[in-house]
Amino acid sequence: MSQIITLTSDFGLQDHYVSAMKAAMLEVAPEARMIDVSHEIPPQDIMAGAWVIRNAAFMFPEKSVHLVVVDPGVGTNRNPVVVKMNGHYFVGPDNGIFSLLYDEYEYEAVKLTNPDFWRDQRSRTFDGRDIFGPVAAHLSKGVPMSELGEPIKEMVVYHWAIPIGDKDGLQGWVLHIDRFGNLITNISESLMKEYVGERKVKIYVGTTVIGNIVNTFGDVEEGDPAVFLGSSGMLEIGINKGNAAKLLSVHKGAQISIVLQK
Amino acid sequence: MSQIITLTSDFGLQDHYVSAMKAAMLEVAPEARMIDVSHEIPPQDIMAGAWVIRNAAFMFPEKSVHLVVVDPGVGTNRNPVVVKMNGHYFVGPDNGIFSLLYDEYEYEAVKLTNPDFWRDQRSRTFDGRDIFGPVAAHLSKGVPMSELGEPIKEMVVYHWAIPIGDKDGLQGWVLHIDRFGNLITNISESLMKEYVGERKVKIYVGTTVIGNIVNTFGDVEEGDPAVFLGSSGMLEIGINKGNAAKLLSVHKGAQISIVLQK
Amino acid sequence: MSQIITLTSDFGLQDHYVSAMKAAMLEVAPEARMIDVSHEIPPQDIMAGAWVIRNAAFMFPEKSVHLVVVDPGVGTNRNPVVVKMNGHYFVGPDNGIFSLLYDEYEYEAVKLTNPDFWRDQRSRTFDGRDIFGPVAAHLSKGVPMSELGEPIKEMVVYHWAIPIGDKDGLQGWVLHIDRFGNLITNISESLMKEYVGERKVKIYVGTTVIGNIVNTFGDVEEGDPAVFLGSSGMLEIGINKGNAAKLLSVHKGAQISIVLQK
Repeated sequence: MSQIITLTSDFGLQDHYVSAMKAAMLEVAPEARMIDVSHEIPPQDIMAGAWVIRNAAFMFPEKSVHLVVVDPGVGTNRNPVVVKMNGHYFVGPDNGIFSLLYDEYEYEAVKLTNPDFWRDQRSRTFDGRDIFGPVAAHLSKGVPMSELGEPIKEMVVYHWAIPIGDKDGLQGWVLHIDRFGNLITNISESLMKEYVGERKVKIYVGTTVIGNIVNTFGDVEEGDPAVFLGSSGMLEIGINKGNAAKLLSVHKGAQISIVLQK
Repeated sequence: MSQIITLTSDFGLQDHYVSAMKAAMLEVAPEARMIDVSHEIPPQDIMAGAWVIRNAAFMFPEKSVHLVVVDPGVGTNRNPVVVKMNGHYFVGPDNGIFSLLYDEYEYEAVKLTNPDFWRDQRSRTFDGRDIFGPVAAHLSKGVPMSELGEPIKEMVVYHWAIPIGDKDGLQGWVLHIDRFGNLITNISESLMKEYVGERKVKIYVGTTVIGNIVNTFGDVEEGDPAVFLGSSGMLEIGINKGNAAKLLSVHKGAQISIVLQK
Repeated sequence: MSQIITLTSDFGLQDHYVSAMKAAMLEVAPEARMIDVSHEIPPQDIMAGAWVIRNAAFMFPEKSVHLVVVDPGVGTNRNPVVVKMNGHYFVGPDNGIFSLLYDEYEYEAVKLTNPDFWRDQRSRTFDGRDIFGPVAAHLSKGVPMSELGEPIKEMVVYHWAIPIGDKDGLQGWVLHIDRFGNLITNISESLMKEYVGERKVKIYVGTTVIGNIVNTFGDVEEGDPAVFLGSSGMLEIGINKGNAAKLLSVHKGAQISIVLQK
């Protein structure tokens, strides 16, 4: 059986781009099992793509192939790559899109240099269809990474991928605002255990100060902000029956500080 | 062959939520045939979800499983349920989301209490992935409802699900405004036959009065409002080559009155 | 194996329409391999639908069936048709939606008149579910075109489908603005070869004059407009790291002139 290939892009669903990429993949692997993660990543928003693939990927079975095309540098000399982490394959541009994974997993990577595994006809502006899609399809059929190109060591990583912990607490970033306005940070459960544990904290986000961490929305009054560990394993800030991003006026990329109280 | 599982939610297509739910389902039923109905139900809009699943469900073959996750009460004590109606299975929260079906079909229901059929790892805010998805996948493989939990009798039903008919005519609600601005009501063909038949009527919606019911858009001038039985078997109000919701300033939930004329 | 059926419509993803159409297709061809091209064609925008299917169709293997439902005239007497071009089948209304293909490919067409291949229960306003979907499903199973209706010769074609070339250069139209704001014209690579070749040109679009044609975005400074042959084989106008439609204030349907310089 062909492995699952997941698809994540900023192509949107209005144009023909997603279907053209899928057709190019089906040409290589007619039985491919393609599952859309999202094609509504905001245009060229690498942080958003990094967040989505970080959450979706390891829900799928081992050996799944994850095609991620958010690629503002298409047509320039950024590297097309395959990265293997935790038994899964990631295919896309080396532009930081996999930033949120390198910290948690060992990786090995290959720079895509072998055009035998690309589409015959190529455009300068559509590597999703011409390179990444076909490579993902070949991987799903069992082609070894080593045939696709040359090993590389250093990958592009963004600063917002890395929260900072010290004796005063933790500093992180709002990586993502979901459809309900919940603010999702890059502070993980394990970081919380390491730097905070059971100690008292104050949480600063925008101009709001929140006095404690709860288990779920239901633990605060309607309209009040709640800080809790979300379904993604990251600290989230939400408002019970409300939109936290709007009501707290917080944008993606905002800092969040968890300050230990004496 | 695995049964079809349809998916309806308010998760949107921008986040990883839909794919996480699908991955959890594939873990249980790797061959599941999943068909998206909509993931663009407006956030927490139970009326919209109820409308969409009411229309989509019975288009699919018997024994299909319909997963419907519009769940503002996730994390509270609302019941997770499976409801069997007309040979189909419906999985979701008991929050009124199936309101538009109970009137038309006999049902039997089970409150989901058996965690053997849930995901091992559970979050407090993502029952779609952790409970509803896996349960739907088990149902699609033939697990009997009775193993999933305990029978319950009384389901949550919304008032807007029930139009009112009497000697003066019919009173209903605009349940849905489609992409083209057509106003779709909860007044069905059979209610029209029972309370109106061939008699003359006036239709009141917002500040507009419409003098008769036609067969299709083509029967009125461009720009004029038309009242007709739509493809969903419900009375609809549209404007020939125009957007009825905008031009008549009518919102979802608005009343519509069909008044018999002497 | 069933052939691929691609789906393109203006139904949006919020309503139940797409799933109802798919269910009607599965009733005919339970093993159908359906691939969504787009359901986000702007409502009733035939030009947008024509553009998308023109780009997507021939990426798929021969004998694929392309269902295209952008159908402002549903319920009127426009013809429902199947058109065979380049070994592919196209199913939809004869309203110009296939305009961008007739110029490039020989076609044979049939007007759908045989209700044996339609859905038993029919609405006046949902031919996608009741006629086009089932017909596409039958085609995917190998039903010959000739059984579906009567041959017709003259198809509806829009003026915007046909660029004009003469001794002074080329005149075309902006057919499409993609998600990134790139302006995609109806001027093809082969027209450029025929009417322009290696000669110097000025390109006029809106109030902007551009002095030359480049290979890709990377060849101009950030913020500057670039004219180049895009991934669709058509001349495109984009702005390096910017939104051309916004920055040049150009709308879909705008004229573009390629004027030869002495």
